[in-house]
Amino acid sequence: MGDGALLRDFRACFAGLAAIGRDPETGGYHRLAWTDEDRAARGWFAAQAAACGLAVERDRNGNLWAWWHPRDGGEAAGAEAKALVLGSHLDTVPRGGAYDGALGVVAGFVAVSALRRRGLVPVRPVAVAAFAEEEGGRFGLATLGSRLLAGTLAPADALGRRDAGGVTVAEAMRGDRLDPDQAGSDPDLLDRLGEVVELHVEQGRGLVDLPAPLGVGRRVQPHGRWRLELRGEANHAGTTRLGDRRDPTLPLATAITAARELAGRAGAVATVGRILVEPNSTNSVPGGVRAWLDARAPEDAVLDRLLAAWRAEVAAAADEHGVEAELTCESRSPAVELDPGLRARLAEVIAGLGLPAPELDTAAGHDAAALAGVVPTAMLFVRNPTGASHTPAESASDEDCALGCAALAALVEAWACR
Amino acid sequence: MGDGALLRDFRACFAGLAAIGRDPETGGYHRLAWTDEDRAARGWFAAQAAACGLAVERDRNGNLWAWWHPRDGGEAAGAEAKALVLGSHLDTVPRGGAYDGALGVVAGFVAVSALRRRGLVPVRPVAVAAFAEEEGGRFGLATLGSRLLAGTLAPADALGRRDAGGVTVAEAMRGDRLDPDQAGSDPDLLDRLGEVVELHVEQGRGLVDLPAPLGVGRRVQPHGRWRLELRGEANHAGTTRLGDRRDPTLPLATAITAARELAGRAGAVATVGRILVEPNSTNSVPGGVRAWLDARAPEDAVLDRLLAAWRAEVAAAADEHGVEAELTCESRSPAVELDPGLRARLAEVIAGLGLPAPELDTAAGHDAAALAGVVPTAMLFVRNPTGASHTPAESASDEDCALGCAALAALVEAWACR
Repeated sequence: MGDGALLRDFRACFAGLAAIGRDPETGGYHRLAWTDEDRAARGWFAAQAAACGLAVERDRNGNLWAWWHPRDGGEAAGAEAKALVLGSHLDTVPRGGAYDGALGVVAGFVAVSALRRRGLVPVRPVAVAAFAEEEGGRFGLATLGSRLLAGTLAPADALGRRDAGGVTVAEAMRGDRLDPDQAGSDPDLLDRLGEVVELHVEQGRGLVDLPAPLGVGRRVQPHGRWRLELRGEANHAGTTRLGDRRDPTLPLATAITAARELAGRAGAVATVGRILVEPNSTNSVPGGVRAWLDARAPEDAVLDRLLAAWRAEVAAAADEHGVEAELTCESRSPAVELDPGLRARLAEVIAGLGLPAPELDTAAGHDAAALAGVVPTAMLFVRNPTGASHTPAESASDEDCALGCAALAALVEAWACR
Repeated sequence: MGDGALLRDFRACFAGLAAIGRDPETGGYHRLAWTDEDRAARGWFAAQAAACGLAVERDRNGNLWAWWHPRDGGEAAGAEAKALVLGSHLDTVPRGGAYDGALGVVAGFVAVSALRRRGLVPVRPVAVAAFAEEEGGRFGLATLGSRLLAGTLAPADALGRRDAGGVTVAEAMRGDRLDPDQAGSDPDLLDRLGEVVELHVEQGRGLVDLPAPLGVGRRVQPHGRWRLELRGEANHAGTTRLGDRRDPTLPLATAITAARELAGRAGAVATVGRILVEPNSTNSVPGGVRAWLDARAPEDAVLDRLLAAWRAEVAAAADEHGVEAELTCESRSPAVELDPGLRARLAEVIAGLGLPAPELDTAAGHDAAALAGVVPTAMLFVRNPTGASHTPAESASDEDCALGCAALAALVEAWACR
């Protein structure tokens, strides 16, 4: 299959998924876990698997697997008999872009399809995976499916979490024919996994600036999310004297500005991207504010210092205004070094395409990072001309995407086929 | 009817309304215009009117009137034949208190009922009124019903306004069997009105501090609401460098702190009580923020200066962060002096109860202020021990409320009965 065929195959496969969950007004995608859009995307996944002759399995945590099994159970034994997994996720943030997650799943199918058309058969299992609720866009728990599978997120810490409409993870799972009592670490499945390679659209301008169409992930930076609850006193916006107010928006303002200033000084990033005000009425002094901090830094110690300084500034502002402040860590991921052996193999197949294979760090969380403690993982990045992410502006050229598919196909051919 | 009977009557009447729209979890009231809770409150209004033998009318703008007509059309003529109106409103802010608005309508019924039981009959019409959407809690347009009636709010500026769910004023009116094409100034009805007296729970500690159970409103301070739209660029919270961001929460933080600081310096109040963030996702730099400023000052010129300074600070912060800022005035009410003659009469009847009759200014908007340009209006305040307003903590003792009912009854007896 030549490059032209791969490009056509990529376009057709990607277009099918890109039709699901798109808001025609904004161009943004809404595919939140265990919603109608997610079910439609899973229908697309099943159809792709069927077209490639792959057997679909849904695991206990809602992750999807399309298996390409060796005909005779394979010739290899032991570690060599374990699966080489390609994939990423189908869910998006609210009003997200078309590529984040989707591209990695599409590329997995396109790569397998290209090899099958050439008559190749695997000597060890190959799978295309789609991990559930990677973005945390619905329940605020990023990489939910992969962390439950890996056993690094306890079901007890996840199942009671509620979405904006008050639905718990357990209820959403049940509504989607998953048994929440079965959620959690899945040693039998993990034992079948040899390596996981996640292809992903780059979320910055690293490859654009070089320039290079593909890059190899080296390190996922430490990352955390914290929920700040500010409790003041609701009151009339006209008749309540300033001195009598306990207005939680004032420490909120400090939380916003301090996050930016402290991150700037630390060489980190920090964002207050989600804010909920109660009662959120124009002529009421708010009684409460909930706000979420997302912070990432090159080193764990830097992130720890950033958080401590931010917490202190917010606490001081809350005290000044008679507001109670409570901070809860919703997630914290340490720095993750991706597997050196897998990175070297990825660099080899990229070089085989006549391309440079630069290594990149990333400040975004990924399923590959969430699984790194239980299976060797790597990431392959595809150039993003806008550098934008989590927005309809994120992009990648069809040609670069096809190169990514070709690299995956070469990896599977070299490693898992004869 | 002695004081004990008035107190019992007040308690029974108030309890009926206080049962409608209360959230048992927070104790807060949700009675927004033209919702199920509002319909239930109007059912209560009709039942009270029937119990008092009053004829209910709903005007073209959705305001309710319960008429106590002279038996023979009255003996008076000209201005003396016009109605003395008691009343306030039934709607609340989201999670509001039990007294704001409700108390004035209840007190009107209790006063009329007390006079009727004594066998008194009016020589001119008396009405108990409940004005629609006074709080602007649903559509952001405070004193909607009274301003449409007065002709100071053009239907064209109101009917297209949307609630949080996207429903327009026109659609909500239609859904509630009102014809939006008929909304607007109602000269025939206005011509029937002689005076409007609005009893209201005080929204501060003026009467507590004196102390005095009742007070007479002197002046409603100028007041405005402005909507601030901040448009930046949505992006990934991890991978977007700080320098590449156009984050609208940063000028939002300035809007919050500048409102407080400028108001403090001006002897005014200013509040950013409502904030909506898009897409409001923890791991996204927001693309847009809408925030509302509520500001009130002792003088119009002070309010103008406050707004100009605030606008300049917000614009500078928006520029600094590459964010577009747009400010829209949603409402602006000038200072309103309540009718001196009516105030004197209210002071007389309060003195007749053996009580002091202090005069108070208020920073809250009211239907009495909205109607002041088309009919003489006055306000009677009832002491609020907590001084809180627009929250379940607002309160008034039953005894003080009954004194307010007694003052209204004395006013109607002296002015409209024989």
